[in-house]
Amino acid sequence: MTGRLFDRIAIVGLGLIGSSIAHGVKARGLAATVVGYDASADVRARAAELGFCDHIADTPEAAVKDAELVVVAVPVGATGEAVAAIARHLAKGSILTEVGSVKTAVIRQVAETLPDHVAFVPGHPVAGTERSGPEAGFADLFEGRWCVLTPCERSTDEAIEKVTRLWTALGSQVETMEPEHHDIVLAITSHIPHLIAYNIVGTAADLEEVTQSEVIKFSAGGFRDFTRIAASDPVMWRDVFLNNKEAVLEVLGRFSEDLAALQRMIRWDDGQALQDHFSRTRAIRRGIIDAGQDTADPDFGRPHGHDD
Amino acid sequence: MTGRLFDRIAIVGLGLIGSSIAHGVKARGLAATVVGYDASADVRARAAELGFCDHIADTPEAAVKDAELVVVAVPVGATGEAVAAIARHLAKGSILTEVGSVKTAVIRQVAETLPDHVAFVPGHPVAGTERSGPEAGFADLFEGRWCVLTPCERSTDEAIEKVTRLWTALGSQVETMEPEHHDIVLAITSHIPHLIAYNIVGTAADLEEVTQSEVIKFSAGGFRDFTRIAASDPVMWRDVFLNNKEAVLEVLGRFSEDLAALQRMIRWDDGQALQDHFSRTRAIRRGIIDAGQDTADPDFGRPHGHDD
Repeated sequence: MTGRLFDRIAIVGLGLIGSSIAHGVKARGLAATVVGYDASADVRARAAELGFCDHIADTPEAAVKDAELVVVAVPVGATGEAVAAIARHLAKGSILTEVGSVKTAVIRQVAETLPDHVAFVPGHPVAGTERSGPEAGFADLFEGRWCVLTPCERSTDEAIEKVTRLWTALGSQVETMEPEHHDIVLAITSHIPHLIAYNIVGTAADLEEVTQSEVIKFSAGGFRDFTRIAASDPVMWRDVFLNNKEAVLEVLGRFSEDLAALQRMIRWDDGQALQDHFSRTRAIRRGIIDAGQDTADPDFGRPHGHDD
Repeated sequence: MTGRLFDRIAIVGLGLIGSSIAHGVKARGLAATVVGYDASADVRARAAELGFCDHIADTPEAAVKDAELVVVAVPVGATGEAVAAIARHLAKGSILTEVGSVKTAVIRQVAETLPDHVAFVPGHPVAGTERSGPEAGFADLFEGRWCVLTPCERSTDEAIEKVTRLWTALGSQVETMEPEHHDIVLAITSHIPHLIAYNIVGTAADLEEVTQSEVIKFSAGGFRDFTRIAASDPVMWRDVFLNNKEAVLEVLGRFSEDLAALQRMIRWDDGQALQDHFSRTRAIRRGIIDAGQDTADPDFGRPHGHDD
C-alpha cells in the first residue's frame, strides 16, 4: 500500500525492536534491501538463521555501507558507542535514527561522533513486550502504537519527513516533542512503572513469611501484572535509569511522597481520604480504554481478571 | 457433573463476587434455589432484572430463611454489619461463609454476632476483575483460580468440606491457611500492588509538566497495567487497607525501603547493582506462567505488548 520508502536500510542491534523493524519493513515492502548487524556474534548467527533481514553483515562498516537509512536499536547506554563504530562509514546524505527510551542523553552522545553529512532523527517507538532478543520480533509490534520523534539541531525537515513515513508505514502514529519533555513524559508513563514493578517483585522475593510458591499461586490478586513488566530486559532498563536520572529521580520523589501520604491515611484510619483517592483513578483508566491503548482488554473487564 | 450440593443458597451482597457465585451456582446446578439480597434497593432491582438468582429477597431475614448455606459477599468493612443483620434469622445447622480479602479482622467481626448453631467458614476467592456491580458477574470468574479458606474456632469439619466442594465445583482450587498467614500473603500479592497502582495513577494525574492526554497516549509504556488495577472498586479497597492495616504497613515499609535502595543506585550510577536486581525478577515471572496463573498471556509475550 505504502510502497518502497528506501532502497537500503541498515539495522544495527537485532533485539526485540530491531528485529521487529526488520520484520515490519520486509512484510510491507518498505525497502529493497534490509541489512542487519549486531555486536554479538551469537545474535548475528541467530538472526541469520531466522532470516528476517536480507543480509546479516559481519562488521558495522559493512552493515551501513550505502544505506540511505540507518536505524540504531541498542540499549540506551550502548547507543553512543554503536554510532561511534559506524560514524566514519555512513553514506553522505544518509539518515541516522535510533529508538531509545531516553532522548536527551542519547542526542548528546550521538552528536559527539556523527559526521556533518548525516542527518539525525531521534525517535522512540512506545511499544514492546517483556520478551527480548531476535526471536522476539514480529512485524506488527508497532501497529496502533505511538512513536515519538524528538528532532534536534542535527535533524533536517526532509529526514524527519522520511522517518515519519517509515513509522507511519509500520502502523504507528507519530508525535513530535522536545527531547526534555519526552524524558519526563516517559519517566511517568514507562520508567517509574518499570522501576516499581521490579521493586515489588524483589520485595516479594525477600519476604521471609511468604514462600515464592505462595507468591506465584496467589499472583492473580494483582501481583502478576507487575511481574509481567518486571520481566523486561535488565540491561535495557539499567541504561534507561542511568540515562534519564534527573527525570526519574524527580518523578520518583513525587511517587514516594504520595505513597507516604497514603500510608499515613491507612495508619490513621482515614477511610474517606482513601476512598476519595481511589475514586479519582477510574477516569484515567476510562481514557486509556477510549483511546484504544489497551487493545488486549477491549471490554474493560474479563480477560485480565485479577484483584480482590 | 458435580450435581446439586445444596438445596437453598442465600447470597448477601450482589456485586462482582456475589453475582458471579450466583451465575456459577445456577450454571452448574449446584443448588435447587439461589436467593439473593443486597442492602441497596437499586442493586436489588438491577439483580432482579438480570435474573441470575431464582429470587431476590427484600430483607436480609427473608433472604437467609431456610438457607443451608449463606454467602456474605460485601466489602470487608460491611461484613460485620451484614452478619449482624441476618444473625438471628440463620437456620439451625446452616453454614455461613464469606469472601473477604482480609481474614483476621473479618473473623473477629463475625464472631461477635454469629449464633452458636451456625458454622462459619471464612473464605477468599482470589479472583476478580476491575469491574464491580451486579452487571459485572459471570459464571466462570473462579475457573482456574485459587480460593483460600481460613478455618477458625467456629468452623466444623463438615462445613469446611461443604464449602470446599462449592468452590471446587465453581472451578477453583482450594487451599487452607491460618488467617494471619493469609493476610500477609495477600498483602504482598494483592493489597500492596493495588495501593501502588492507585498511587502512581494519582502521581501521574498531579504532574504539572505532563498532560492527562499524554499520560493516556503513552500508557503502553507500562503505565496502563497499573491503571487497570487502579480501576477496582474504591470502597472495597478502602476497607481492605483499613482492615489489614498491620500486614499492609509492614509490607509497605519493606517496599519503600527497597525502593529507596534502587533510588540510591540510580543516583550513584550503580549500574551493576541495578542490572543484578532486574535480573532476579525473571524467575518469578516464569513461575507464574508455568503455574497457569496468567492465562491471558500463555506465550509469555505478544498480547500484553508494553514497555520501552
